Amino acid sequence: MKETARVETFSDGVFAIAVTLLVLDLKVPSEPPLLAGLLAEWPVFVAYVISFTFILIMWINHHWMFQHIVRIDSQFMLLNGVLLLGITVVPFPTNLLAQYVLTSEQNVAAAVYSGWFFFIAIFFNLLWRYAAHEGRLLSPHDREAGLAQVITARYRWGPVSYFAAFALAFVWAPASLALNVLLAIYYVVPRERAIRLPGRPASPSQ
Amino acid sequence: MKETARVETFSDGVFAIAVTLLVLDLKVPSEPPLLAGLLAEWPVFVAYVISFTFILIMWINHHWMFQHIVRIDSQFMLLNGVLLLGITVVPFPTNLLAQYVLTSEQNVAAAVYSGWFFFIAIFFNLLWRYAAHEGRLLSPHDREAGLAQVITARYRWGPVSYFAAFALAFVWAPASLALNVLLAIYYVVPRERAIRLPGRPASPSQ
Amino acid sequence: MKETARVETFSDGVFAIAVTLLVLDLKVPSEPPLLAGLLAEWPVFVAYVISFTFILIMWINHHWMFQHIVRIDSQFMLLNGVLLLGITVVPFPTNLLAQYVLTSEQNVAAAVYSGWFFFIAIFFNLLWRYAAHEGRLLSPHDREAGLAQVITARYRWGPVSYFAAFALAFVWAPASLALNVLLAIYYVVPRERAIRLPGRPASPSQ
Amino acid sequence: MKETARVETFSDGVFAIAVTLLVLDLKVPSEPPLLAGLLAEWPVFVAYVISFTFILIMWINHHWMFQHIVRIDSQFMLLNGVLLLGITVVPFPTNLLAQYVLTSEQNVAAAVYSGWFFFIAIFFNLLWRYAAHEGRLLSPHDREAGLAQVITARYRWGPVSYFAAFALAFVWAPASLALNVLLAIYYVVPRERAIRLPGRPASPSQ
Repeated sequence: MKETARVETFSDGVFAIAVTLLVLDLKVPSEPPLLAGLLAEWPVFVAYVISFTFILIMWINHHWMFQHIVRIDSQFMLLNGVLLLGITVVPFPTNLLAQYVLTSEQNVAAAVYSGWFFFIAIFFNLLWRYAAHEGRLLSPHDREAGLAQVITARYRWGPVSYFAAFALAFVWAPASLALNVLLAIYYVVPRERAIRLPGRPASPSQ
Repeated sequence: MKETARVETFSDGVFAIAVTLLVLDLKVPSEPPLLAGLLAEWPVFVAYVISFTFILIMWINHHWMFQHIVRIDSQFMLLNGVLLLGITVVPFPTNLLAQYVLTSEQNVAAAVYSGWFFFIAIFFNLLWRYAAHEGRLLSPHDREAGLAQVITARYRWGPVSYFAAFALAFVWAPASLALNVLLAIYYVVPRERAIRLPGRPASPSQ
Repeated sequence: MKETARVETFSDGVFAIAVTLLVLDLKVPSEPPLLAGLLAEWPVFVAYVISFTFILIMWINHHWMFQHIVRIDSQFMLLNGVLLLGITVVPFPTNLLAQYVLTSEQNVAAAVYSGWFFFIAIFFNLLWRYAAHEGRLLSPHDREAGLAQVITARYRWGPVSYFAAFALAFVWAPASLALNVLLAIYYVVPRERAIRLPGRPASPSQ
Repeated sequence: MKETARVETFSDGVFAIAVTLLVLDLKVPSEPPLLAGLLAEWPVFVAYVISFTFILIMWINHHWMFQHIVRIDSQFMLLNGVLLLGITVVPFPTNLLAQYVLTSEQNVAAAVYSGWFFFIAIFFNLLWRYAAHEGRLLSPHDREAGLAQVITARYRWGPVSYFAAFALAFVWAPASLALNVLLAIYYVVPRERAIRLPGRPASPSQ
């Protein structure tokens, strides 16, 4: 069995639970009229979809990262754990944002929100750099292919961009949130093409 | 390890949690008489069994679909994620239905309920079609066996039927719910016979 | 990969969540004195330990059963799902018992409790018999070794005994609960010795 | 498949859920001012980070322990289950501590907290000793390498130290808590170096 199997199982469990617990925030309207009650709940539904999608995107990134990692050690497990802590908390700033985005506190709410993703971006970087430093935990194949540099370069912009979103929150909250959405799209869409093509054959027997 | 392993682990986790969180809706009657209190809770118990069974049937379908899928990419993981979003939400329309089915709002409740399964049916189709398009993510064996067409044809009726249930909800809610139950039975019972026989040997060493 | 892998992952997930969700019932005393508040909560703690232990024992039995099963089909997954439904609900009758065991409603509470395990015992039997019927889903080795008969005989007493506990609840609740504890002990202790020795070598390479 | 696979999956699930359920304790402030509301919640955030980190460290230890275990039996699964019970409960004494650490009840709170880790330390020892006794469940390689003695010696100090923290709680609560933090650090940092170097090659193909 791959040495990383249990770290992946544990991480998958945490991602899966974080994403599923979100449903506890959806409340059936307690009084008629039902349709009006549902419509009034729209910020909760939007927060649900956003939290779900962002955690999903982080899971996909976590997945791709672990495609290149073949060994683990205690420090790596600790760093991975701190990243998971960041991910399990995501529903909290999201709900906070849903509740305060239409109030005069929207700057604080957007700052907490972007600030949290800034924290997560830092730990994604630390985790990857720890694994990739001199090819420490990578497969020999990836070590040679120079793949580490490609991914490192790609991740580098995360903290910078999320810090920009954080700073922007104090100036104009909507722009900060828009930047968050753009970053989410950036981190899901072109990843595969950028990373997998040079590194390894895409054969079915992989 | 099969390339889809982590997607399956993650999905299994989400299904397992979605199905287990349902128990949080069961409340011990706070006052005697106990038996009367339990009997009065019957809609909650019925909703529990229905939610559990429907999620279970979707898990079984998800399982069979992944029997034919041997590769993944980011788009596939995103589509699978949206399907999982649909599944984690199932307890919400179910509770909504349990609470309003005996009131004058039963049409809205049944429409939300069937509408949600319509959404899920669409994403089951998209997920499968993305994987099966020109055999993109299938095993070579299944690609040749023409299995993809059989399954595609089978799934095609899902969205149509659930849309019918959705439309029916505005006319006569009980008929809409009955159609939902029939569809659940259809999607669990004859699946295996229809799909597995032509495609692959049923040997123990599979 | 073993064909049953995903059923086991899904089942493990359900067991793991069922057992962990129990902690949500433990409440920190909201007012001092702290020690007195903790001591007053003792029925909740006892219910916690009992629920946890009984689900754990059922998981161990589920694990051993799957040691002998090498194939699956849709019917088997459905039966397994109904068994899992039974297991996820266990916290409910347990809390109900904790709340009513010291009241005049103890007979109803003990009957619900034992009745639920009667239901679970029936589905453990159905699941095993479906798998073992003419060796349907067993490994060829186990099929030949006559192991199926040993296990079938062992499980047979479950429903009978739990029905006795159910009936006893109406007469004398403490005796019914004592019988439940005895049955739990019976189903964990000698299982391995009874079943594994005749069937297969205990080699590390198993 | 490794015989311990399902025990690990189940355990990983329990750890992952225990760690993720913690987020349910984080509450969005219901009234402005938002920033003041968040700052006032600091003991909840500290409790969150501590619970998460301690469960994470126990998971890492559990992981390393299972690196050496290649067989299982029912007794082992029961002992592992009791250890998991201990771990799932961790959020309870942590919340209790968060709520009472700044009150006159801090001694009771710190005693409950350290006492619980004393219990967990005992079961970590029992689990390992059961597995390592005459090399019962270890791989032949580890059995020969004398690794069991190293680990046994290492674990031995756990119960003693946590009992000291428990006793200290009645005298001076802050010292007791400081000892808990020290022990957590001890059990994560040098573990790998102490245990892995003598036992086995650190080759990628491990």
